[in-house]
Amino acid sequence: MSNGFILDEWKIIENSFEPKTARFSESIFTLGNSHMGLRGFFEEEYSGDSLQGTYIAGVYYPDKTRVGWWKNGYPEFFAKIINSTNWIGINLALDGEKVDLAVSSFKNFRRELDMKQGKLTRSFTLISKDGKETDFVITRFLSMAEPNLACITVKATALNHHSVLTVTPYLDGDVKNEDANYGEKFWQKVNQEINQEYAFLTLKTKKTEFLVSTAMSIKVLVDTVPETFEKKLLQEHKYVGYEINIPLTAGKSVELQKFIAVCTSRDFEEITLEQVTVDKLQKAYEKGYTNLYQNHLQEMAKKWEDTDIIIKGDLKAQQGARYCIFQLNQSYNGKDPRLNIGPKGFSGEKYGGVTYWDTEALCLPFYLYTNEEIAKNLLFYRYYHLPQAKENASKLGLKGALYPMVTIDGQECHNEWEITFEEIHRNGAIAYAIYNYTSYTGDGSYLYNYGLEVLIEISRFWASRVSFNPRKDKYMILGVTGPNEYENNVNNNWYTNYMAAWTLEYTITSLNELKELNQEKYNNLRNNLSLEALELKKWNDILEKMYYPTVEELGIFEQNDLYMDKEQILAKDLPPEELPLNKHWSWDRILRSCFIKQADVIQAFYFLPERFDLECKKRNFDFYEPRTVHESSLSPCIHSIVASNIGYHDKAYELFLRSSRLDLENCNDDTDEGIHLTSMAGNWLAIVLGFAGIAVKNSKFTLDPYLPKAWESYSFKLTFRGRRLGITVCKDHIKIKQFSGDPLSIYVREKEYYSSKEKSLSIKLV
Amino acid sequence: MSNGFILDEWKIIENSFEPKTARFSESIFTLGNSHMGLRGFFEEEYSGDSLQGTYIAGVYYPDKTRVGWWKNGYPEFFAKIINSTNWIGINLALDGEKVDLAVSSFKNFRRELDMKQGKLTRSFTLISKDGKETDFVITRFLSMAEPNLACITVKATALNHHSVLTVTPYLDGDVKNEDANYGEKFWQKVNQEINQEYAFLTLKTKKTEFLVSTAMSIKVLVDTVPETFEKKLLQEHKYVGYEINIPLTAGKSVELQKFIAVCTSRDFEEITLEQVTVDKLQKAYEKGYTNLYQNHLQEMAKKWEDTDIIIKGDLKAQQGARYCIFQLNQSYNGKDPRLNIGPKGFSGEKYGGVTYWDTEALCLPFYLYTNEEIAKNLLFYRYYHLPQAKENASKLGLKGALYPMVTIDGQECHNEWEITFEEIHRNGAIAYAIYNYTSYTGDGSYLYNYGLEVLIEISRFWASRVSFNPRKDKYMILGVTGPNEYENNVNNNWYTNYMAAWTLEYTITSLNELKELNQEKYNNLRNNLSLEALELKKWNDILEKMYYPTVEELGIFEQNDLYMDKEQILAKDLPPEELPLNKHWSWDRILRSCFIKQADVIQAFYFLPERFDLECKKRNFDFYEPRTVHESSLSPCIHSIVASNIGYHDKAYELFLRSSRLDLENCNDDTDEGIHLTSMAGNWLAIVLGFAGIAVKNSKFTLDPYLPKAWESYSFKLTFRGRRLGITVCKDHIKIKQFSGDPLSIYVREKEYYSSKEKSLSIKLV
Repeated sequence: MSNGFILDEWKIIENSFEPKTARFSESIFTLGNSHMGLRGFFEEEYSGDSLQGTYIAGVYYPDKTRVGWWKNGYPEFFAKIINSTNWIGINLALDGEKVDLAVSSFKNFRRELDMKQGKLTRSFTLISKDGKETDFVITRFLSMAEPNLACITVKATALNHHSVLTVTPYLDGDVKNEDANYGEKFWQKVNQEINQEYAFLTLKTKKTEFLVSTAMSIKVLVDTVPETFEKKLLQEHKYVGYEINIPLTAGKSVELQKFIAVCTSRDFEEITLEQVTVDKLQKAYEKGYTNLYQNHLQEMAKKWEDTDIIIKGDLKAQQGARYCIFQLNQSYNGKDPRLNIGPKGFSGEKYGGVTYWDTEALCLPFYLYTNEEIAKNLLFYRYYHLPQAKENASKLGLKGALYPMVTIDGQECHNEWEITFEEIHRNGAIAYAIYNYTSYTGDGSYLYNYGLEVLIEISRFWASRVSFNPRKDKYMILGVTGPNEYENNVNNNWYTNYMAAWTLEYTITSLNELKELNQEKYNNLRNNLSLEALELKKWNDILEKMYYPTVEELGIFEQNDLYMDKEQILAKDLPPEELPLNKHWSWDRILRSCFIKQADVIQAFYFLPERFDLECKKRNFDFYEPRTVHESSLSPCIHSIVASNIGYHDKAYELFLRSSRLDLENCNDDTDEGIHLTSMAGNWLAIVLGFAGIAVKNSKFTLDPYLPKAWESYSFKLTFRGRRLGITVCKDHIKIKQFSGDPLSIYVREKEYYSSKEKSLSIKLV
Repeated sequence: MSNGFILDEWKIIENSFEPKTARFSESIFTLGNSHMGLRGFFEEEYSGDSLQGTYIAGVYYPDKTRVGWWKNGYPEFFAKIINSTNWIGINLALDGEKVDLAVSSFKNFRRELDMKQGKLTRSFTLISKDGKETDFVITRFLSMAEPNLACITVKATALNHHSVLTVTPYLDGDVKNEDANYGEKFWQKVNQEINQEYAFLTLKTKKTEFLVSTAMSIKVLVDTVPETFEKKLLQEHKYVGYEINIPLTAGKSVELQKFIAVCTSRDFEEITLEQVTVDKLQKAYEKGYTNLYQNHLQEMAKKWEDTDIIIKGDLKAQQGARYCIFQLNQSYNGKDPRLNIGPKGFSGEKYGGVTYWDTEALCLPFYLYTNEEIAKNLLFYRYYHLPQAKENASKLGLKGALYPMVTIDGQECHNEWEITFEEIHRNGAIAYAIYNYTSYTGDGSYLYNYGLEVLIEISRFWASRVSFNPRKDKYMILGVTGPNEYENNVNNNWYTNYMAAWTLEYTITSLNELKELNQEKYNNLRNNLSLEALELKKWNDILEKMYYPTVEELGIFEQNDLYMDKEQILAKDLPPEELPLNKHWSWDRILRSCFIKQADVIQAFYFLPERFDLECKKRNFDFYEPRTVHESSLSPCIHSIVASNIGYHDKAYELFLRSSRLDLENCNDDTDEGIHLTSMAGNWLAIVLGFAGIAVKNSKFTLDPYLPKAWESYSFKLTFRGRRLGITVCKDHIKIKQFSGDPLSIYVREKEYYSSKEKSLSIKLV
């Protein structure tokens, strides 16, 4: 645990270095630019505990999964984004004494992530064994403007000595994953070269055969003036480096600039890959550090303009919220339709950088409000994977499509039966995303041209997965795991049953709408998919006779059959030393307890708030939230949104804080493994959907805003059907400024107002 | 699938060789002698598909289990008996042409396992490329008299040529397990030596550091006369061998005899291990093949005398029954209290040769009737493991003792949560074994001196594992897997709840009996275990308020909560091409189906027949057996016994046949991985407890025998409280001959008879 960051609205600052929590800090100081990213490990050698991780989006390895007790239907591999060439490496030595912060003496340590600028700076004063003091300032940024590029600078200032600084900038491709089985390495050398001008490595992944070229050039400045030094060329297997000796003079500073280009065969022809990489590098070198950095800053500014949330009066919340937005922006830009959002972004090995239903549950809504095109691309990602989803269902002996729990290329790549085969509610989230997009944008083109095909195949899956129970005259869904993964293999998870029935309903409704709109397209769709009347009849029958477990005497939905047979204890009565449960309790104990990992019944209130009345939501929330331990990072933000919606403002704020600072305060005691990227989108939503209460109801743009007690105001921007809106919520009024688009009718607390570019609104909240 | 064995009362004969089913045959032709054993793979090189496996009892490796998604409470390793030095190896070449049955031409192939003699013989006529025909006869036996010894002979007779036979007997320790992770090897070289007289290898297992010395000597006979040939000494890493060139003359035979000694540091001091091994080898060599073989035969005869079942009129059943008895006798002799019975004996890698509850369910009863001392040793095996079982429970946050699902040294070494943490009914079987032993032998000494301690700790486990449900005023056991592993993580498995309550009852009863018998011992026990009155009160409360799921309208026990919500289909209506389900259906589909892997409710009728009335047993059997797919090898025999007990004779016979020839006919399509050893004990019981209806009721020895329609008679021997009895059941009468002990009162179909050494009984069956 470490949460000693200095509060600042734009920066994450650490002013001491704790080797014990080095991994935690490395996760927090992750940088990325959507194409690539890396943890905040050091440039120079560090012999202490560290998780070095440098990742490239989409460059994965199909790791072996046939371990333990394999079961029919398991995937052949578990894809993971792998640790790739370490390109930040710059070893340092002063008069031959190696700089290694695990061993060396130093003071004035400071690490600062400037979120506005997208830059990481580390500084410290090194004290050599014979008392020489040298200031070091080391910076890095990954260009948001030109995602193949990155720059690192190392500035050294001798304080009380003349001496020789040896710098060894290098590229090291001989890396492995910490989680590799038996230390297996995933990279093969293709080519490597080093000369006085530049050096590069070209490596290829085993099996998947992704080619990656990484190139570097070096510039040295003495008192800001470029100077030429002799470079000794170093070469080893999958390693190239320069050794440069630079005289230091007391009071004068020298700076090393390292320019890096990283290109892959995902984006460029294999045959020209090296040339492209070296060209990019050379252009960057010629452009120079300042220009590159300016371009990067411009792009950063755009991102902030789209997504920033300004919170007045609560620095802790402001810093947390911005950290979430910052990590989202630097991990994924939505431009490459083959990519998606991994739960940890570029910050670690866990979850392998693959796609979960987090995308549809949290990320897609975030993009829906901030950048609609990205949301649409995320829908297409699933559309393109429909063939694999159908194959996946058929592997389980079922019809239609079952989207994978975990994937990188559309194939399932996770192998725990209770998840892979049973956590099928994910299919509901994928159907919901189509609804969400269509409902928010008011644009039916995706639905009618692509989405319905997905919906029909998902409906087919549900229809073949239910079983009819003649004793109860109901359709049931047996043997599932709900969103609450702290129960496995249960019958009739209420949420799963609800989302299955909802999918059938939405599919039937959408089909009927299409029939009205375009009879020919409707006929073609039914013909192409061989959708018979009998099948639709069956869907209607399931809809009518779906079984929903309930606890009559409490007036609540029962999370799943037999949930009420569990010993009923509240989370607040758990001994703090046993939290998080998943680190202290054996799995069977967790499973038979009543404790809930994350929103389950509550998830439906988040997705489909208008389908439940306020009292129903309150009763369920009052029952389930006190039993929820929020040990999934997806939990606090969703509970916060629902709490806001039902007027539980204090609870909403408490959970928002937990969500916004989940990683900064290491709430789940696992940030050392990486940040919780997908939940960060949920944090943005907790403000926009929760505090501001934004919703689209029957195509109407509505707000039900309130201001958390501790805040003075909050502001954010979003786009709704071509209108760019800026919204500021204060204690007793709300301001809406429209930047673009046609006039808009806006409902605030159910009262209608008219907004236009010409007319800003300022509405009193009573 | 292969089931082409010739029917024979004492032999298993194959008269052709099918490379496709080579692994299946290798399993069937497994030989062992309790100390060591091996699959029926070939002595000479064979380049086709084969699973080479040579195993030594108790020599295991703690394989890594931290793969996939590790959970709190999982063991650190998965122990497995590992493939060890291949000592049967004898490569053959004729005039330089290698003999390799995957490549060479041959005819007259025959492989014959003589079960009476415990010897495997293989013969074929080799046809060289230039038409030279040579008869080969290759035999092996593992001495039952001196378990460190084995002999192999290779006899070659040139039919139509003069030529040179090159034989290369060797020891090869550079072996690995087929299931090793990333081909990891488990053996390290300690020493190796070869000279004209003998050769040996001494290897050590990694981590567990078992030392194993394997030594060999060679004798060559020409026309039965020993002759000396030059031996070329071969040495490689972990390999020693002799190359000998022997001239062949048409019509004359030459024979190579290979003597082997295998000793381990489990039995001998490390420092003298090599010397002991070489000494044993040299003595064996001096004794000569014929004497060694005679000693072996004498021991085999004793084993058959104790355990044989003679079936007249049904060769198929006779062969199957003897095959089961043969494999039991050669796999385990009960002399080493550190050893137990692995589900596959020495016949393969699957299940790693470790101990399951199969021992208490099936093997221990078999020994109870045939060799009481072994049964008692098996009880002590668990008694010695009580500390580890207590640690295991405490890892799961529970009190008392939870015996492991899988173990080699008392520690749990299996890691599937639904089994490891949840298949806790195994604790009931371990309690039951104490009852079974005490009830059959009438000897309370184990119970009062050791067993009660085990019972108390198991009772404590149950008492901490139940949860009280105030809504139903019942104690429940949530989140378990019953014996039917085709349901996982269910609530209130009826069998588990029943055995838990039964354990509490038996523990309380036994404590009360001890109090009557020996107040001081009783007091000491309670003091030593800090057994308070409150605890006993809680046990009584649980006993009284235990919840048992039932299906009222059918008058049956419900296998577990919600079982009746499943789609109800009968096994007979399954498409044959989808069987066995575990090879064709995905796991979730199996789990949510009503199909039952093995006896679950029915298991209680097998363990505790007197506690249920006939009609109750019939109703449950009628309901559950048709839903049972018997995909555990433990299933048919137990169902057969219960079917016999309730008068379902045809069903009992059908299931007996399936059990007795389970491997010979590869019923579960998995014998290629090894035989089903523990179920073989069940087969013996299906005759003795089932057909003959032997039971001890209130200390009375009772029989309720019948003769399966297809049979003329069956006979077997057993020991009951110091009396050796021979029992023969014919169509209309039963004969009982008493060989030793005091006169005995015997109840046949509830009528009392008196047996003594002087007076054989012949009782009419009406």
